Amino acid sequence: MPELRRDPIVGRWVIISTERAARPRDFFEDTHARQPTTDLCPFCPGQEHLTPYEVLAYRPQHGPANSSGWMVRVVPNKFPALHVEGDMEREGLGLYDRMNGIGAHEVIIETPDHKLTLADLPPKHIEDILWSYRDRMVDLKRDIRLRFILVFKNHGAAAGATLEHTHSQLIALPIVPTSVAAEIEGCRVHFQQKERCIYCDIVRQELTERTRIVADNPEFLVVTPFAPRFPFEMWILPKRHAAYFEESQKSQFEWLARILSESLHRMDRTLANPAYNFILHTSPLHEKTGDFYHWHIELIPKLTQIAGFEWGTGFYINPVTPEESAKFLRDAQL
Amino acid sequence: MPELRRDPIVGRWVIISTERAARPRDFFEDTHARQPTTDLCPFCPGQEHLTPYEVLAYRPQHGPANSSGWMVRVVPNKFPALHVEGDMEREGLGLYDRMNGIGAHEVIIETPDHKLTLADLPPKHIEDILWSYRDRMVDLKRDIRLRFILVFKNHGAAAGATLEHTHSQLIALPIVPTSVAAEIEGCRVHFQQKERCIYCDIVRQELTERTRIVADNPEFLVVTPFAPRFPFEMWILPKRHAAYFEESQKSQFEWLARILSESLHRMDRTLANPAYNFILHTSPLHEKTGDFYHWHIELIPKLTQIAGFEWGTGFYINPVTPEESAKFLRDAQL
Repeated sequence: MPELRRDPIVGRWVIISTERAARPRDFFEDTHARQPTTDLCPFCPGQEHLTPYEVLAYRPQHGPANSSGWMVRVVPNKFPALHVEGDMEREGLGLYDRMNGIGAHEVIIETPDHKLTLADLPPKHIEDILWSYRDRMVDLKRDIRLRFILVFKNHGAAAGATLEHTHSQLIALPIVPTSVAAEIEGCRVHFQQKERCIYCDIVRQELTERTRIVADNPEFLVVTPFAPRFPFEMWILPKRHAAYFEESQKSQFEWLARILSESLHRMDRTLANPAYNFILHTSPLHEKTGDFYHWHIELIPKLTQIAGFEWGTGFYINPVTPEESAKFLRDAQL
Repeated sequence: MPELRRDPIVGRWVIISTERAARPRDFFEDTHARQPTTDLCPFCPGQEHLTPYEVLAYRPQHGPANSSGWMVRVVPNKFPALHVEGDMEREGLGLYDRMNGIGAHEVIIETPDHKLTLADLPPKHIEDILWSYRDRMVDLKRDIRLRFILVFKNHGAAAGATLEHTHSQLIALPIVPTSVAAEIEGCRVHFQQKERCIYCDIVRQELTERTRIVADNPEFLVVTPFAPRFPFEMWILPKRHAAYFEESQKSQFEWLARILSESLHRMDRTLANPAYNFILHTSPLHEKTGDFYHWHIELIPKLTQIAGFEWGTGFYINPVTPEESAKFLRDAQL
């Protein structure tokens, strides 16, 4: 019997319909991240002149900006969706509203080594990537025109990556996206009713039920959500309540790097190195959400074709239960 | 300068960022609907035994059910996401909520001819397809467990079609999907403030501005929306206010069939027969939305890879302005 499940935060219902597919193997076709080799990669050391000037780089030997010797390097996107320069012009046009595309669009080059993926990097190196996210957020936060910072990663062509050299992206926006606003509103309503954070409640319930746990360490819990939109969708949740990613403790980044690495390995082993996306969900910049919002990461292997009605309605059909997904991921031999 | 635009109904902001691509030709790669030939097609006449028993068919010569001789045929999906049988069991599990997957999932086989697409059919035949949507909706509406009926079409593998024989789908749900609820809420708020339907306001503004019109006839207007999520996205709007698709007049279906056919031809000519989705947005079944909701069809060619952050945030980057899209579509030689 198919089942409908409701996401407790945004109220989104999903169908869990297991009649079409059940085992990871059923998704293998089309899911491998294609890895075409490019001749001249603008993200490789020695090619720094092919990117816009860097906004951040970690160079253990302290070389000059835009030289090689970096471990993580952040540059503006060469084809930015938004620009930092210009005035924050807003306008009404009859019914409609528009504003200038003020914002930032940056690329985090995760390693100088073209051949490696994020999963190949040691946790210590992933920690540096997390610090680079945080450092850029702290810097951009000072621009009061910006209201939300989106950090995400597309791995593999099927997930939207256009360059193969492993990288993440950061987009700083002058608005709060609707789905983010809906998530925050869901948290606010729960807190008003119960004086508790709903993600903290989820962490507690998942640690009791134990059927959807993928990985666990002192600071983080990785679960498949109760009402997942996608097969093998994972949420990486801080165990300690915190609304702002950028205010994390150093030790938390250490544990996060380890559990992110472990989650990627479990996913790669279970699904044969799929294309994937991850998205950092953190609080908007100038809103007081400290009591009720809880930052987290959503990690989603790109396995199924999203059909038209799914993004048209916010209603998803998922052929695998999260309990099955979690079991496969948990049982993966690392 | 990139620009941010707000959808006036759901409040969704999109980036119009035209630096990466501008002309339809830039999207041609990957966009052609693949048309693999299948040997034995369950939707072809003579193969009626390969589908579940039909729930509706139009047979001009009045032959027996599940025989050939039909022009449009509706059958339950062989791998349904939801089942009509069973009890509407609901349950709370700690924080979470679930219910049985009660509902219906049907396939509308649009023509007996395997080689034709919806765009190839004469408007008179498309009218019959619209009637079949309406007849199924009227029938399913009597089941009080059902709250929303979703009619949609995936054309081409890139848009999620798994069978090549042209067909649409219908899913009847025991809940109202979140995005539909958000759209209706947006309309309700506008009506509360202004005593006017927001879609009627859009029709009036578009007919005045004339920069986003793709096609126009006495009953319908096709526009590219002011804040489109996707390049060449089109909305087919009834000019007369009406919340429920299934309550349309016969003459409206005649005009709708013509303008839908014209829109598909303009799209095929402009974008070289792309894969596409359309979704019928109509009122939930048992809600009184007559004053403020306005049914319509969203038609979206499948051109760009939706990146992870877009469905993760409800925030879209669109490389083409709707004014440009409309001009290309309007100028297409039919």
